[in-house]
Amino acid sequence: MDALAGPKVVALGGGHGLAASLSALRRIAGRLTAVVTVADDGGSSGRLRRELGVLPPGDLRMALAALCGDDEWGRTWADVLQHRFSGGGELHDHAAGNLLIVALWDLLGGHVQGLEWVARLLGAQGHVLPMALVPMHIEALVGSPHRSVDGTREIRTVAGQHAVATVEGDVVAVSLSPPDPPACPEALAAIADAEWVVLGPGSWFSSVIPHLLVPELREALVTTPALRAVTLNLSPEGGETTNFTPEMHLEVLGAYAPDLRIDLVVADRGSVPDEPLLRRVAAEMGAELVVTDVACDDGSARHDPQLLGWTFARTLGRGRIGPWR
Amino acid sequence: MDALAGPKVVALGGGHGLAASLSALRRIAGRLTAVVTVADDGGSSGRLRRELGVLPPGDLRMALAALCGDDEWGRTWADVLQHRFSGGGELHDHAAGNLLIVALWDLLGGHVQGLEWVARLLGAQGHVLPMALVPMHIEALVGSPHRSVDGTREIRTVAGQHAVATVEGDVVAVSLSPPDPPACPEALAAIADAEWVVLGPGSWFSSVIPHLLVPELREALVTTPALRAVTLNLSPEGGETTNFTPEMHLEVLGAYAPDLRIDLVVADRGSVPDEPLLRRVAAEMGAELVVTDVACDDGSARHDPQLLGWTFARTLGRGRIGPWR
Repeated sequence: MDALAGPKVVALGGGHGLAASLSALRRIAGRLTAVVTVADDGGSSGRLRRELGVLPPGDLRMALAALCGDDEWGRTWADVLQHRFSGGGELHDHAAGNLLIVALWDLLGGHVQGLEWVARLLGAQGHVLPMALVPMHIEALVGSPHRSVDGTREIRTVAGQHAVATVEGDVVAVSLSPPDPPACPEALAAIADAEWVVLGPGSWFSSVIPHLLVPELREALVTTPALRAVTLNLSPEGGETTNFTPEMHLEVLGAYAPDLRIDLVVADRGSVPDEPLLRRVAAEMGAELVVTDVACDDGSARHDPQLLGWTFARTLGRGRIGPWR
Repeated sequence: MDALAGPKVVALGGGHGLAASLSALRRIAGRLTAVVTVADDGGSSGRLRRELGVLPPGDLRMALAALCGDDEWGRTWADVLQHRFSGGGELHDHAAGNLLIVALWDLLGGHVQGLEWVARLLGAQGHVLPMALVPMHIEALVGSPHRSVDGTREIRTVAGQHAVATVEGDVVAVSLSPPDPPACPEALAAIADAEWVVLGPGSWFSSVIPHLLVPELREALVTTPALRAVTLNLSPEGGETTNFTPEMHLEVLGAYAPDLRIDLVVADRGSVPDEPLLRRVAAEMGAELVVTDVACDDGSARHDPQLLGWTFARTLGRGRIGPWR
């Protein structure tokens, strides 16, 4: 680690969770790379992948916007990327940045190259890469929220990231198709070269676990010499993980990547009902637990980028030297 | 005029004609401002104005692209602006730049401000302004291409820029609604401050004459201390001006703005069947005629920006000192 520049960090996830993670990490990372899920099939992204056969750009756009330059130029272009058309017509609800990203892909051919042009436009303080080079489909097995009189419950298949992220019931398993997609080589290289990789927060089954379902990416995460941090969600997500405790979030990670050692777990003080239990589960995976205040105080169930950034500064910022706290 | 920086020039028009004019003028102008028709109702622009009630952005986009910075950055973003989506769906044939401009207007509120952000993105060598601040509708009276046995011919009304620009028959009159739209104050100021204003080339009735139909803009063109140049089209446009001679192009300008003095008329050697006649008609409007080679040699009926630029350098570049040639 360059003590002045901060560590090389790769953050994995999607949606608002990854954006919060990036907003925090940009304050401390020397080099920051986001590796982003490309399984969205809802909204503007879903329409674009159906119409044009492209990677869903929405999560990539949000990650880019979260890394925008910290000046009027960067913030204005981030606002433009995030701007959604109204009017009720054929453009309704499309995010301008999704259309710009797709135009760049169309024009330049390469996914990485197109995203890098948007990053340069924003003066972005980091790089944004897709987790795979083909659009992915998520499928989940979901347990009914209601048990029958004999105590059993129905398990059904739910297809599509949007459906999985908003399903009523508990996701018990998730899979991707195609099952062995081409990973983004630049993402694999960034993970191999990282000093820290950070998973979460975010919709666990639709934004975090998918990275572990891309074989090359899981392998890269298992074999990297980097330290591995997991940022737990603040409160159970509505939908897919309604009844999940913090410990269960870690156990699911372990189930999908048994070889994945974890070094650090960050949890919000208000979202840990049983700290000793969580500490034991974390320790079983090799991780130290940091319980601190990282939630917004506006009741939004989102991470506060400044508080999370301070936490990262006190942990990741210190590199390989422990203990944390 | 600043001898080093070149003259302050305002170019008026729309479409490919204005883009050619700007590509030439950017080589010699110290400060270059495009004032662009906003009457398009076809294609991507037409869909956007119908769906969102905005100014049609297409001609503005083309003018911006023509002014892009002369480096990889400027040219790449110009290519992105000009890129059109395919795929046959709801985005089909939309130009990415049209969507970006509309997003900026939506987000920032002001037309001029939004266009200036795109100009900054491109590193544009000039400014692009709309001729009016509301979308305009063009209506034309068109003479049938076929005369009846008694020598008369039918005159009919054709509504919409796209229809006027492609109509079969001769446009005999054109009008705008609303008839007294708010002009863009920055455009009026640029004209008042210019050393040269340049009209044409372009679809005469749908891209050039409309400027003279905006009362404030016509008044500004008549009263500016700037010298006035007219670049004639290379060959009769298909459609609206099929049977128009170069002289008739000038006469139409005079008909819509009788007080408009003209100082310079640039015509291509291959598009002037009767040079003495054209010189007389130009002289009646106060103008010197320059007949030279300004056409592409690829049979495209377009102006060659380099040749046109050289011509402007030998004429506009010399400021108020005549004679030209």
